[in-house]
Amino acid sequence: MSTEQPRAAALLQQVCLNRYPAEATHLLEKLPATRIADLLGEQPPELALAVWERLVPDIAGEVLESLDDGRVRELLSRANPNRCVAWLASVSPGRRDSWMALLDETRAGELNTLMAFPPGSAGALMDPRILVFRADMTVREGLQRLRASQRHDILSLFVLDGDNRLSGVIPIQVLAVASPAARLHELMQPVTAWVEGMTPRDEVVDKLEELRIIDLPVVDLDGRLIGVVPPQALMEAAENEATATLQTMVGTSKEERALSRVSFAVGKRLPWLQINLLTAFIAASVVGLFESTIAQFTALAVLLPVVAGQSGNTGAQALAVTMRGLALREVRSSHWGQLLFKEALVGFLNGLAVSGVTALGVWIWSGSTGLALVICLAMILSMVVAGMAGATIPVVLTSLGQDPAQSSSIFLTTITDIVGFFSFLGIATLLSAML
Amino acid sequence: MSTEQPRAAALLQQVCLNRYPAEATHLLEKLPATRIADLLGEQPPELALAVWERLVPDIAGEVLESLDDGRVRELLSRANPNRCVAWLASVSPGRRDSWMALLDETRAGELNTLMAFPPGSAGALMDPRILVFRADMTVREGLQRLRASQRHDILSLFVLDGDNRLSGVIPIQVLAVASPAARLHELMQPVTAWVEGMTPRDEVVDKLEELRIIDLPVVDLDGRLIGVVPPQALMEAAENEATATLQTMVGTSKEERALSRVSFAVGKRLPWLQINLLTAFIAASVVGLFESTIAQFTALAVLLPVVAGQSGNTGAQALAVTMRGLALREVRSSHWGQLLFKEALVGFLNGLAVSGVTALGVWIWSGSTGLALVICLAMILSMVVAGMAGATIPVVLTSLGQDPAQSSSIFLTTITDIVGFFSFLGIATLLSAML
Repeated sequence: MSTEQPRAAALLQQVCLNRYPAEATHLLEKLPATRIADLLGEQPPELALAVWERLVPDIAGEVLESLDDGRVRELLSRANPNRCVAWLASVSPGRRDSWMALLDETRAGELNTLMAFPPGSAGALMDPRILVFRADMTVREGLQRLRASQRHDILSLFVLDGDNRLSGVIPIQVLAVASPAARLHELMQPVTAWVEGMTPRDEVVDKLEELRIIDLPVVDLDGRLIGVVPPQALMEAAENEATATLQTMVGTSKEERALSRVSFAVGKRLPWLQINLLTAFIAASVVGLFESTIAQFTALAVLLPVVAGQSGNTGAQALAVTMRGLALREVRSSHWGQLLFKEALVGFLNGLAVSGVTALGVWIWSGSTGLALVICLAMILSMVVAGMAGATIPVVLTSLGQDPAQSSSIFLTTITDIVGFFSFLGIATLLSAML
Repeated sequence: MSTEQPRAAALLQQVCLNRYPAEATHLLEKLPATRIADLLGEQPPELALAVWERLVPDIAGEVLESLDDGRVRELLSRANPNRCVAWLASVSPGRRDSWMALLDETRAGELNTLMAFPPGSAGALMDPRILVFRADMTVREGLQRLRASQRHDILSLFVLDGDNRLSGVIPIQVLAVASPAARLHELMQPVTAWVEGMTPRDEVVDKLEELRIIDLPVVDLDGRLIGVVPPQALMEAAENEATATLQTMVGTSKEERALSRVSFAVGKRLPWLQINLLTAFIAASVVGLFESTIAQFTALAVLLPVVAGQSGNTGAQALAVTMRGLALREVRSSHWGQLLFKEALVGFLNGLAVSGVTALGVWIWSGSTGLALVICLAMILSMVVAGMAGATIPVVLTSLGQDPAQSSSIFLTTITDIVGFFSFLGIATLLSAML
């Protein structure tokens, strides 16, 4: 076998990692840790580093454990600090301490700063490596400092005063085309957005959505710059927040993850289930009012879930569309009248269509025209009310300064169940002569 | 009154717009259109432009209508093209045509290109203003071209070959610190992500999430660069997609907006309601199997929604947490066993807690130990099954290449209803001697 073949294979790996970083990394992650270590050891250092930073943290931690101290030190000194912290978190505390002892003081300090902030806070999201730029520096000096830092990820130069407080910001694209002799204070713009280290993730994302920034400076309690949240971390935070809404809506905490501990999940979900039980009892008591009607016509008990199900669904659709409009700032409380009218009409029209099918089905099943009429009327009525409730609840909660994701659905289900049960059994009782 | 006062007021406005752009723009939007036009006319041009681009498009359109042709031409020539298209979309077609006639050919061409792409496609999200960089240009020449363009929003230089196809990309921060005499081909990196103009928004967002890019080149069918989706548009697209999941889950289209037309909303929502009706009938037929038991013990009909409600909620919690884990790529199909075990156990423990309270409530209400026992057993059983279903459905749908948001909840509701009804009424029938 010629030596060409392994060289060709190495080149192919390199091209593949360069061109298709996401796919190549996913493939790599399926190999055993020592094999990943070997493969990465053969790549050019810059490329290897980029792949390291893409690996799932627990796999990266495992691969790190198979390396000698020299390579561990090199990686932990050069890689993105947030990635390093994620790797450190995936190994045993003993291993972590021995690795931290390999690092120089600056780097160890940066990593310790990051680890001191609670997960999800701005302090944990930020890159703690700060380059200091002063207002009286020239563009030439600024570029020299950037070049010397070997940082290729800096998009905004934050200009600091003598106390390291933010005095202005210069986007890198402005610096790039500025005259080399210009002073930074001539180029700098006011800083419109910053957060403190303990700021929770949802407030970080609010800044992002309101100001459409691409990175975000983080300051300590005295206003001194302690780091910058880079664009990738901002986007990840936004994605995390957006997908969390779904969990909040069904009553579990944003913090729960798919593989969270059972005790954590039970603790977060149980209070909601108990509240929900209370509202279910209230709805059941409505059914209880009509026990004698049900005893007479058991078909009502069979069809009850159908009416409640359709009204619940109609309400959920109206709720989802209204909540999204509020979240994207496309509608405000002042649009409530319009929303209410729209959802009432949508509920009525969908009610006509759905109840027509239902009435036909019920008539075929039971042969009773009266029962078909009752369910038809009840469905239309409850779907109109459900639509109106779906449009109203998030608007009211938002006006009261509440997060509509938190409690909208519990109010909605209570209302749609009660209205569904009451209208169906009430109309049945009124028209019982026809059943 | 001295002339100092109005000047001070103007200065204050300027500072306010500069420092608190989001709040200042919201305040501005509450004024009448002509007043907004006057205020913006008094600001320095760069600042005024930044505010224009922040205004809600329909308000901006209204303000534009109050301006003379000269100022309209200036704004439509200088502002971000995507903003311009949004403004043009908010006015009458006649007005739009007369404004387009004011523009020079290049600009009119750019705006027409944008308007030709369907809303939400990559082509409609991109900035169509292209700067051409060639591989043999020096860094000095590249920077000169950037400076001449007066574009302050370019973060990536796309290097094009003779046919205007992408040959590489240079991040602006790399260009900024490069030696002026270096050639662009020495600096450029391979382009790992690009889309075609007709690529829908969800695929654009997939690229963003997979590759953590900050901007995205858009090419035509022949691979020629036609525009770049800037970071702000990418983030907006990601936010739009993430909030759309909620709508997909309850069966209305991603395209529906809070203020969409009633006919549009009915068309999108009705098919789901009809499918849902079918599943409700299936669940009702389970209840129908036990009609004779219900005729004997009407209390069962009263309590039926309580059991189904709790099992539905437990399933929805498991579903939300699992779906989010899959969306954030924290879990994969291979974790199914772990997820199943976790959710079964969570369902069992929550079932114990909730059914204990329920049994107590039922015993107080009915005085029947038998009924309390029946509901207790039914609840635990159905909550365990619901948790397992919530963990399984999105994993199976994802493995089959389906979007779990699309159809998870309809499968889940069908299963939790049937299991809830069947376990409650089945156990009641078995233990009917105790009721």
